[in-house]
Amino acid sequence: MPKVSQQHLDARRQQILDAARSLFATQGFAGTSTTDLVEASGMSNGAIYRYFKSKNDLIVAICDQTTSDLPDDLSERSLRSFLEVIRSAALERDHARLIAQIYAEAAISAPLAAIVQRQVDELRAAVVDLLPGREPVEAEATAEAFVALCQGYTQQLAVRGDVDPAPYAAALARLVQER
Amino acid sequence: MPKVSQQHLDARRQQILDAARSLFATQGFAGTSTTDLVEASGMSNGAIYRYFKSKNDLIVAICDQTTSDLPDDLSERSLRSFLEVIRSAALERDHARLIAQIYAEAAISAPLAAIVQRQVDELRAAVVDLLPGREPVEAEATAEAFVALCQGYTQQLAVRGDVDPAPYAAALARLVQER
Repeated sequence: MPKVSQQHLDARRQQILDAARSLFATQGFAGTSTTDLVEASGMSNGAIYRYFKSKNDLIVAICDQTTSDLPDDLSERSLRSFLEVIRSAALERDHARLIAQIYAEAAISAPLAAIVQRQVDELRAAVVDLLPGREPVEAEATAEAFVALCQGYTQQLAVRGDVDPAPYAAALARLVQER
Repeated sequence: MPKVSQQHLDARRQQILDAARSLFATQGFAGTSTTDLVEASGMSNGAIYRYFKSKNDLIVAICDQTTSDLPDDLSERSLRSFLEVIRSAALERDHARLIAQIYAEAAISAPLAAIVQRQVDELRAAVVDLLPGREPVEAEATAEAFVALCQGYTQQLAVRGDVDPAPYAAALARLVQER
């Protein structure tokens, strides 16, 4: 029996995740059946089961891959590009709608809430790193509002389709100004 | 046959809505069955059906009742009280978790998205009214970020349980400052 390479296994796993992500974003977790997954991924029920034992495992894996990249600095220009990335992900890959599903599920599932909390903690810490020389309390408060505003933008994109990022870029720039 | 007063009918309708709101917040829309609703409301299947023909009708009615009251002014003190109201609603009535369910559902349902969009539009307009004497474009941009940040706070409460409102009060106060 020929040995299947790890690369091949990883690619098949990713194929399932990509199909699931798209289905979850447009139909919700509850509205996505195994049949939908089989059709969208082009893989059999058994093959999918080899990688993910339950829909919940799939949701967790998708949530794990759903991280955000922050800008390199907090100039208004960089903030604007950063928000354009969030906007493109929403428009081209239904990312904002997927995030809405993840938050709803995390609100009623402790294990998923733990993953989302860890990701939010990491994002806040990354924003703090972009605010050198501030009082720690001030930097942390700024990071808290910064991350929540980015997520507020994502939430608006999820429900309104497209939303101009300009007011958000201006607001983020205000929030990160030295007091 | 005795005539049933409108007051009585309204009270029974509200009884169903209250039970549904609590179930949806803790179990999600998909995770709530008719049996759960019958148990939690103390009303029969048939009685519930008289008021709401489908789970979707119930979701729409709950969404319609889920409006936010803004503060009377935008002083940091008023903003702080306003956020405390959001926080108490999350801690005492699972309100933030319900909102997470509503946003997720609105992200995949056009009729629900239309309701949420209308509510967000009304909130933004109300914030603009609290910013007299500004350039309309500036007031609208401020209101956009203001509403998204409040919703970002709600989203954080939904997933993290309790979140200190102080950084949000400070951030909102910064956003509404004259430029």
